Formats: sequence, C-alpha cells, structure tokens
Amino acid sequence: MRATVLYGPRDIRFEERETPKIEQPTDAVIRLSVTCVCGSDLWPYRGVQAIERPTPMGHEYCGVVEEVGRAVRSVKPGQFVIGSFATSDNTCPHCQYGYQSSCVNREFMTRAQAPVLRVPQADGTLVATPAMPAPDLLPSLLTISDVLGTGWFAAEAAGVKPGSTVAVVGDGAVGLLGVLSAKQMGAERIIAMSRHQARQELAREFGASDIVSERGDGGVARIKELTKGVGADSVLECVGTHDSMWQAIRATRPGGGVGYVGVPHGVSLDGAELFFTHVRLHGGPAPVRRYLPDLIDLVWNRKIDPGKVFDLTLPLDQVAEGYRAMDERRAIKALLRP
Amino acid sequence: MRATVLYGPRDIRFEERETPKIEQPTDAVIRLSVTCVCGSDLWPYRGVQAIERPTPMGHEYCGVVEEVGRAVRSVKPGQFVIGSFATSDNTCPHCQYGYQSSCVNREFMTRAQAPVLRVPQADGTLVATPAMPAPDLLPSLLTISDVLGTGWFAAEAAGVKPGSTVAVVGDGAVGLLGVLSAKQMGAERIIAMSRHQARQELAREFGASDIVSERGDGGVARIKELTKGVGADSVLECVGTHDSMWQAIRATRPGGGVGYVGVPHGVSLDGAELFFTHVRLHGGPAPVRRYLPDLIDLVWNRKIDPGKVFDLTLPLDQVAEGYRAMDERRAIKALLRP
Repeated sequence: MRATVLYGPRDIRFEERETPKIEQPTDAVIRLSVTCVCGSDLWPYRGVQAIERPTPMGHEYCGVVEEVGRAVRSVKPGQFVIGSFATSDNTCPHCQYGYQSSCVNREFMTRAQAPVLRVPQADGTLVATPAMPAPDLLPSLLTISDVLGTGWFAAEAAGVKPGSTVAVVGDGAVGLLGVLSAKQMGAERIIAMSRHQARQELAREFGASDIVSERGDGGVARIKELTKGVGADSVLECVGTHDSMWQAIRATRPGGGVGYVGVPHGVSLDGAELFFTHVRLHGGPAPVRRYLPDLIDLVWNRKIDPGKVFDLTLPLDQVAEGYRAMDERRAIKALLRP
Repeated sequence: MRATVLYGPRDIRFEERETPKIEQPTDAVIRLSVTCVCGSDLWPYRGVQAIERPTPMGHEYCGVVEEVGRAVRSVKPGQFVIGSFATSDNTCPHCQYGYQSSCVNREFMTRAQAPVLRVPQADGTLVATPAMPAPDLLPSLLTISDVLGTGWFAAEAAGVKPGSTVAVVGDGAVGLLGVLSAKQMGAERIIAMSRHQARQELAREFGASDIVSERGDGGVARIKELTKGVGADSVLECVGTHDSMWQAIRATRPGGGVGYVGVPHGVSLDGAELFFTHVRLHGGPAPVRRYLPDLIDLVWNRKIDPGKVFDLTLPLDQVAEGYRAMDERRAIKALLRP
C-alpha cells in the first residue's frame, strides 16, 4: 500500500510501505473509510517538534475490520469501528477510572493516514457502530476518534455544567468542537476566541453566543468585560502555547476551571502566579475511549454534526496538500479518502 | 501595646506599637485570646521571602470584639469571633462562589501576633461562636483561622471523597490537619509523608493509616508501591517547594487530584510534563471564610481536636522563641498567649 510519511519540516511523502498485518493476538487490522490531518500533526510538520527519522503519520481513523487476532473477542471482521488515537486495554486501573489514554498498555497511534491500519489492543480500543454507517455520517464519525473526543474532554475537564459561562481559546477543529461540546453540556454562554470569519461562523453554528477576536491581554480584558469583571466559569485551552495557556488561566474566575488539551509546547507555569489565580487545571491526552459509545450515539442519531469541521476533502494520495492547506490556515481540517 | 515585628532574617522583635483602633466603618477591633506562629511566617523569617521594611507579623486570630465601626451589623462587642487570614466582604461574586480569599476587597492580615487587632470587612470576615468558649477549646478554635481551614481546602481541592486513597506531602501543622480533614471527609486510606516521630504519631492520631518516610523519587516510589502501582486518588501538597509539588504530582494517579496550599516558592511546572500526568491541580490561599461555620461547629461539639498541633505554648512576649523553635523544627506550632 501507499501511506503518509513525514521526512522533515514540510516534507510529507505518500509512498510505498508494507501493508500492516496482525502481529499480536490482540490486534485488529482495519481498512479505513476516511482519515484526516490533525492540528497536532502540524507541530512536527512545522519542525517545532523534531523527528529523528522518517515518521509514518496519522492517528484519526474509522473503517471496516478486515482481520482480528485470535485473542480478540469484542470486534469482528465486517464491523465498522472507531478507535481512539491512544490504544487502551480498557481493563487496567487507569482505564477503569476512565483515563484510558493513560492505560498501562497505551500506544499512541501514528500510521493512520493510510488505507489499512493495524490497531493494537483491539478489544479495549475499538467500538463498533450499530450497523454500516450512511456515507454522509463518515466525517462526523471520524471526528470522534480525536478532535470531538478531545473537545469533549476539554469541556469536561474545565468543569462545564448547565448554565456555565464558557470561553474557548483556539479556533481549530478541537476548539470548535469544544464549543459544540460545551453546548451539549448545557453551557448558557459560550465565548469563542477567533479572528477568522469562517471559523467564527462555524463556532456560532456549534453554539457560540459571543465571539472575541482580541488575543493575549486584550482577549483576557474582553472576557472580563463580557463577564462583569468576574471571568469565565470554564475555559477550554485548545492550542498548547505558553501564551494561550496563560490567556486561558487569566480569563477564568477564581474557583473556575481550565481544561487544557492543546499539546503543550514551551508552556511553563510559575507556581506562585498559578496559586493566586485560584484556577483549577485539568488536561492531558483526552480519554477518548471513555466517550466513544456516547459520542457514536449522538452522531448516529444525528443530534450533532461535528463533521462540519472538515472544509477540505482530498483523495489520500494528495495528503501533502492537506497539510499545506492547514499549515497556511486555508483549511480548518482536511478529510482524506483512501 | 507591644506587638511582633520582623526586622530581617531571624530578627523578630516584640516592641511598642500603636494600639489599633477603628479606621473604617466596616472595621472591628478585637482583643485576641490566643494567636500563633504560622509555617508560612518562616519564609520571610528565614529570608527566603525578602521584606523591604520592618513588618508586623501574624495572621491567625480569635478573640473578643471590643469595638465595631458604625456599618458593622453581624458582630458586636463582647462576642467571641474567629476570622480568616484573608479578609472578605462575603458579598462579591468571588465570595458568592465560595472563593472568599479572592474577594475583591481582600486584604491579607498581618498584625495578629499582638494583643489587639483591627479586622477590616468585619461583617464578611468574622464569625461568632455560639457563646464564650471554654478555655481548653481556644487552641482548636484558633486553628480554624488558617491551618485547619487550609488543610481542609487542600483535601477538598484534591477531591477527597469517601473511600479515597490520600497522600499528604508535608508534616507541618497544615499537613497534619490535612490528614484530619481527609479523615473527616471519609478517606479510607491516608498516607502521611513524614520523617519525624512526633509528627508521625500525631498524623496517626489524626487518622493516617500509613507513614512514608522517604522523600522525592523514593517517596513517590513508596506511594506507588502502597497503591499497587496506581498512585493516590488525592494528594495534599502542604509545603510549597518545587520538589514537594512534583512529589505530589507524581504520586497521584491519572485523573486524580493535587490540592496545593503550600505557598509556592520557586515552583515551576513544565506544561508538557504536567499534561501527560493527567493530574488535576487546584489550590491557592484557602477560602477559610467558607468553612468557618462548619469547622466552628466541629470544634465546638468536640468532634475534632485540631489544637493538638500546638506542642509549644509561650507568653506572647516570647514570640521570638516561638519562631526559633519552629525554624529549628523543635516545635510543630507555637501558641502565643497575650
């Protein structure tokens, strides 16, 4: 098969690789229906996160099971399945507490921008849909694998409750789906921070009540203004830079929460400064596996349409253009069809 | 009157100062029954936290109201009252959310190692006991003003629930009362980290089920060992150094919480490292005002005896010896009688 490999900064190649097969009795091999490029793929693409050797890319996936190892019990060939970007056995103590992305058997997936994918710990990682999905559901089902699950965790980690005032830092797919998640959790007011018209519009469609285009101190001041000087109850940090993290913390009221899911790059928190903010912090790689059944249900019953974050669709062999479009912010998120 | 002033590192003087009087209509002036030295007083005493000029000391207090300003409604002369180390109007939005120590009218008290004290925002800061307390209750009532309220907040911020496994970093008065608080909240297992026999014994008396004397990586390894490799559900950080903070974070399971109340000195958190721990962080100056009614009730009805943390009692004019004894760890906490 041909699959996606990053060779260095802005050097994405679609090239011949060995087709994956069952290696462990707990593996499944699935044929992907759709895959995509993630905002977090841009860190190594831009050279911000160094890579040591040519690296296969992609960690968002859904598709049809082709084969399973002999120990696999809960999924079978022919089923349509969705899995998290992090594998999990779903039985260890961390999994039992709902933190499957800290599973003792966790592996981060990294070969999903391809037509075929091997998924370790298939029983604990994959969840099947009730039946073969209608084609128009595929983009939304794909978002569950990472960006929707991550936006959902951001909202939950930030403590969003019915009636909450929420701010969202970051207008990428995760931030936009953080808006959708907060809306689903009953937030009354959702302030999206964005300076891009198309993203602002999608944020409003997903449930944002206010848009703030200022950033940094100006953005914090605007949130304070909108909340009568108090700050937001919950802020979703969906970027991962030092500035965006502090923007999130400073926009939160004392006792409020920041849910941070942007993979931190160069973020440093001074303990004394954090102490006097009184802000709760929770984040990390989203435990997507915990949310899979409920999010599949919401999409399957067409209660949400998170697939709208895909504003570019390309054949998989044009994956390099998908990266370019996202890097240049011409696209929010690129869907790839094998 | 004579009162306590810090002139520089290890230079505590008990000297003539003007007796406080009502300055604002919202003030009360109280005659202190007891006061004490706090672990946090040792930061400036040791010169770790610089002071620019001679600084009056003390922020833990309880006593009898002598006079109130004309706007004060809820406390009156003759009542025995306890207040938080941070003043609060108890009406602003932050107070209404239960974060009175972030009140828009907050002042940190700093003149309580004295016979007489002016308390700003008396209506929002002070709570009266049901009657004049028995003398033997005074030490326990005094702890509510800071160390008990702070240990209580640490436990709550760390998410302690019935059945929790809890670890406590720090065996000062706050850490020991964190043990007591976790016990009151129904923790099943409480691991106190201490290498001092007298403190270990008091920790056990307050409810600790296990003692860990190792520190740093060794301490973390021991907590992991005691929890079958999982980590504690909740860890109370009651010291405030970089090492103690990371010891707390690393001893917590993914999804568990660290409640940090040690005033941070030189604590720096790397965002990426924190991200992958999956640990919840919450802390800051304890909103003691929120807890005053319930904690007064627990002490008044003799359900808890937090006053046991005082293992040295001195006349107020020997306050310098109180500092010395705590600095040299000869005493856990020094009670001062005016």
